[in-house]
Amino acid sequence: MTKTDIARRVYDNAWKLDPIVRSLLDTDFYKLLMLQMIWKLYPDVDATFSLINRTKAVRLADEIDEQELRDQLDYARTIRFTKKEMIWLAGNTFYGKKQIFSPEFLAWLAEFQLPEYQLSRKDGQYELTFAGRWSHTTMWEIPALAIINELRSRTAMRGMGPFALDVLYARAKAKMWSKVEQLRAHPDLRISDFGTRRRHSFLWQRWCVEALKEGIGSSFSGTSNVLLAMDTDLEALGTNAHELPMVAAALTKTDAELAEAPYKVLQDWNRLYGGNLLIVLPDSFGTAAFLKNAPDWVADWTGFRPDSAPPIEGGEKIIAWWKAKGRDPREKLLIFSDGLDVDTIIKTYEHFKGRVRMSFGWGTNLTNDFVGCAPLPFRGLDPISIVCKVRDANGRPAVKLSDNPKKATGDPAEVQRYLKFFGTEDFVEQTVRV
Amino acid sequence: MTKTDIARRVYDNAWKLDPIVRSLLDTDFYKLLMLQMIWKLYPDVDATFSLINRTKAVRLADEIDEQELRDQLDYARTIRFTKKEMIWLAGNTFYGKKQIFSPEFLAWLAEFQLPEYQLSRKDGQYELTFAGRWSHTTMWEIPALAIINELRSRTAMRGMGPFALDVLYARAKAKMWSKVEQLRAHPDLRISDFGTRRRHSFLWQRWCVEALKEGIGSSFSGTSNVLLAMDTDLEALGTNAHELPMVAAALTKTDAELAEAPYKVLQDWNRLYGGNLLIVLPDSFGTAAFLKNAPDWVADWTGFRPDSAPPIEGGEKIIAWWKAKGRDPREKLLIFSDGLDVDTIIKTYEHFKGRVRMSFGWGTNLTNDFVGCAPLPFRGLDPISIVCKVRDANGRPAVKLSDNPKKATGDPAEVQRYLKFFGTEDFVEQTVRV
Repeated sequence: MTKTDIARRVYDNAWKLDPIVRSLLDTDFYKLLMLQMIWKLYPDVDATFSLINRTKAVRLADEIDEQELRDQLDYARTIRFTKKEMIWLAGNTFYGKKQIFSPEFLAWLAEFQLPEYQLSRKDGQYELTFAGRWSHTTMWEIPALAIINELRSRTAMRGMGPFALDVLYARAKAKMWSKVEQLRAHPDLRISDFGTRRRHSFLWQRWCVEALKEGIGSSFSGTSNVLLAMDTDLEALGTNAHELPMVAAALTKTDAELAEAPYKVLQDWNRLYGGNLLIVLPDSFGTAAFLKNAPDWVADWTGFRPDSAPPIEGGEKIIAWWKAKGRDPREKLLIFSDGLDVDTIIKTYEHFKGRVRMSFGWGTNLTNDFVGCAPLPFRGLDPISIVCKVRDANGRPAVKLSDNPKKATGDPAEVQRYLKFFGTEDFVEQTVRV
Repeated sequence: MTKTDIARRVYDNAWKLDPIVRSLLDTDFYKLLMLQMIWKLYPDVDATFSLINRTKAVRLADEIDEQELRDQLDYARTIRFTKKEMIWLAGNTFYGKKQIFSPEFLAWLAEFQLPEYQLSRKDGQYELTFAGRWSHTTMWEIPALAIINELRSRTAMRGMGPFALDVLYARAKAKMWSKVEQLRAHPDLRISDFGTRRRHSFLWQRWCVEALKEGIGSSFSGTSNVLLAMDTDLEALGTNAHELPMVAAALTKTDAELAEAPYKVLQDWNRLYGGNLLIVLPDSFGTAAFLKNAPDWVADWTGFRPDSAPPIEGGEKIIAWWKAKGRDPREKLLIFSDGLDVDTIIKTYEHFKGRVRMSFGWGTNLTNDFVGCAPLPFRGLDPISIVCKVRDANGRPAVKLSDNPKKATGDPAEVQRYLKFFGTEDFVEQTVRV
């Protein structure tokens, strides 16, 4: 028996590219749900997405080699949905519903390819934008972020020897498992993986998902990553994102239309999906304004995903609103997903236990927590706060306010217009770490 | 490129035995130094070694399959020193000395084979004894202990799935590295690996040795394991053990001879070796008695290895004795090696810093610390306190008292005779954990 597989060794040393994104399913499930809606209702809308690195101190264009970035982006553009993937999308049950994707949409999807990108550098950062039909550019968000984050990890680890890498991953695994142990103490606490975009790497995300599956069993509700959901027989989770109300608002011509936009998007969503998929993301232009102006039928939806308010305060306000609308919060669902880690998850869970159904979409601190794991002190693997947001729709600027002014995105003048229009009630400035 | 090496996979699943001990160099260096002395000065002495499991609560004969144990012991008996090993023993410099082993001894060693063993069961424990010429039976001590310990680890891990094992080793590595980090804070603290006999497994010991090499660099003085010293270009460390005075004492016929035995052994040692190898192991029959009766020349030796007294009290007494003999302790060496872990190492180091040279022989807690590492609570990998001691020499009972009554071994009546003869001054009863 040979000790070294020589062919494997030569191959490992000779390959040209280790692709970061290898499947179009390696994205968040909500992108596919939104894509079907965009394809159906907004087929002619153009939308430009662009990368925003909120951690300015990290100069991405200095850290990540431009050619490597181009090679990864170019590779992603070569990928198509495979037959197996298409069959799974058609045959799988999502949120208890069969055939959530229409045959027409799937036929269109079978031909899907990521569109072109524009890449340049400015002040040590990459300007990475995706311009074109919304139904194409939207699909870049997750792979672009995953590529940037994993390239950054790879670059950071380039100088480490085999032993240092061994210790690094051992410690990261030990750290992850200590989190699992904390969660095991709360068997009714429902957790899901929302960490695709910010992950350290694909393989590490897969390990973390395995750890949750192994460690908390049925308390692990599933993953937002469609590929991992398929490969590991987990539920694919997620509903909708800010880009829907952002684009809908950007396309409006009058104040009346702007005021209606966040609710019109929900009505469209309800026509397409419904049931367990009726989750409101209320903070695009501030949760307080959203709740104040919301029609009564919004209270009939399954739940809310507060995404930028402090979880306890934000949750309390939604519960109060449900009660004011005569609804029983114990039948409603709150999905927390903003900058969570085990301590905030458990604290929030303990706070609301018995008063509302809850679910926790755990992101960056699940799939990219290498803080303190390198054998020698090293900050190069600390996660950064990076997003890929819609910047304009049909040439009109798109804006997100959120409940945290630090998370606002969009043309500054237009942000001011929105702030004036929707108000800033209950806004809480919080440091954005991840 | 195939993803799975099919031949390797089949081989991995089909092999008959995964040998624990694969080389006669996989032993402690002091066994070879002692062996040369035994071969030269005591060629006709018979000595029986036997296994003693001080952790009675662990029923080894229930945990470890007898056939597996026999297979491992039988395999070890098939091993011979290889040509490469013989050349290395002849050509390497040990403790700064060339040709420490005589050509005649090496010629004899080239033919060496581990002798027969006797294995039976009693009260859930194995009775494992090695009877015959001391020059042969002495060599079983380390492989026998390594085999028992690793078989026990393997058995304990048999029920774990791949993920559990992954977490187990990740946590053990993380735990080990956190110890390395503590030691890094004390660059003048000299550590060596004395963990062969109690190791979790050979591969794990090798990993721990690598970790120390990588993590504390030149503060890592070397390893007692001859094979690892050879393979990783480290110093092979260790001098002598209790078996020398134990056998010498057992062979005595008169009280005068018994009183002389511990010093006569040192004189023999000095004739063979000398220099840096002049390390006194003072506790065989109690350190207080040893120091009280020691001839002045003992104070000329390089250092002492207190092995059963509490390190600080034990060290202080030896320092006081050196001073009383007019020697400067700062030119002397204390080698601590009893049940050490990072906290006791650092505490002892801080206590004596600047007053004496020190070295720490780190054993069980270096190479077998899996406490709290299994993904679910599990005690099956906690180390046990197991030794392989000389029981009689030429049919006469051999005794070890040590400074801790819990570590005494030998026929009870004979232990009483020794206690009466040498006294019990300064004896401190301490729980023996490892």
